[in-house]
Amino acid sequence: MKFLKIPEATIKRLSVYARYLSNLDAQDRRVISSAELAEECGMNAAQIRKDLAYFGEFGIRGIGYYVSNLRAELSRLLALDREWRVALVGFGNLGSALFHYRGFARQGFRVAAIVDDDPTKSGRHVDGLEILPLAELPRLVKQHGIQIGVIAVPAAAAQAVADRLVAAGVRAILNFAPARLTVPKDVRLQNVDLSIELENLSFHLAQSSR
Amino acid sequence: MKFLKIPEATIKRLSVYARYLSNLDAQDRRVISSAELAEECGMNAAQIRKDLAYFGEFGIRGIGYYVSNLRAELSRLLALDREWRVALVGFGNLGSALFHYRGFARQGFRVAAIVDDDPTKSGRHVDGLEILPLAELPRLVKQHGIQIGVIAVPAAAAQAVADRLVAAGVRAILNFAPARLTVPKDVRLQNVDLSIELENLSFHLAQSSR
Repeated sequence: MKFLKIPEATIKRLSVYARYLSNLDAQDRRVISSAELAEECGMNAAQIRKDLAYFGEFGIRGIGYYVSNLRAELSRLLALDREWRVALVGFGNLGSALFHYRGFARQGFRVAAIVDDDPTKSGRHVDGLEILPLAELPRLVKQHGIQIGVIAVPAAAAQAVADRLVAAGVRAILNFAPARLTVPKDVRLQNVDLSIELENLSFHLAQSSR
Repeated sequence: MKFLKIPEATIKRLSVYARYLSNLDAQDRRVISSAELAEECGMNAAQIRKDLAYFGEFGIRGIGYYVSNLRAELSRLLALDREWRVALVGFGNLGSALFHYRGFARQGFRVAAIVDDDPTKSGRHVDGLEILPLAELPRLVKQHGIQIGVIAVPAAAAQAVADRLVAAGVRAILNFAPARLTVPKDVRLQNVDLSIELENLSFHLAQSSR
């Protein structure tokens, strides 16, 4: 089943709902109303109902949602019910932070390869994984069934890395380099620009002091 | 002047437009149509016109936008035409990556203080800045006129750090810890959840293989 034209913001909110539902499930909560779930996530109930409505009918009138069911449905929608293999390119401060970030593993994303052309890094082992040169990428992608590439190299090197990931057969890229990258239409590119988050804060700070 | 109910997505896109306009300005481009700007940013022209319309009338019929003017207007809107002082809390891999992330400084965000209670870190100097214990936060915030706090500590410590930042007088927080934080209404909180970005990729990967 394909879902067409789901807003990106809806997909992000699904992740947030899934997170809170996991917590509630861990606390053995069985049922929750959309109003309570909204309260829990700090959102509004109408938004939650609208977001979920893209994917089907999950609530039960007069009851709300079964926590564990809805959590499982969202996991399935977000494809977190399987393991995704990730290649991490660049093992500077950011790459290292990403590698050790626990949230990834918890959601089923496993870094199966780390590549970095810096001779002081390649050959080193981190948590049993050897950092290898970029030239090894095609072999690593094939061998480990890697589908996602994470780019954590400087902006100037990012496009070349993206090209290599695509050539190696990676189908989705998460780019942390502050550079605009071009990839083929069938490759999914997601950019994370950390300064945009700070600019959002400065916008609001300036607003509130005007 | 206050702008009410500007969608968060619009504010993020303003950052993106500002980025491309800076590049165009650096290449001495004088004028650009909304269609060309849309092409440049990989967005659609109607969206750009709608986003900008929240703030005023920037385009000139038959001409488009003056690149350098629009860039300056957006900088002013995003309050990037001044320096914002930032306290970075937590100097592990992520904190260190954020400190060295060039995008922040480029947009006028200056890390004026680094705090970390880890005794192996506090007392160390990075780029001339001494890492200090958390207890120094109130003094540092006052002394340097710090308005923004960046939380890069483990989830379990994040709420306590947020409380300390708020008590010290910080008015905006960028939180990288995968924890839901509570702050007073007049403090702006922005959460960056890195795994949500990966989940967006897995959603789309799963869609395209269905």
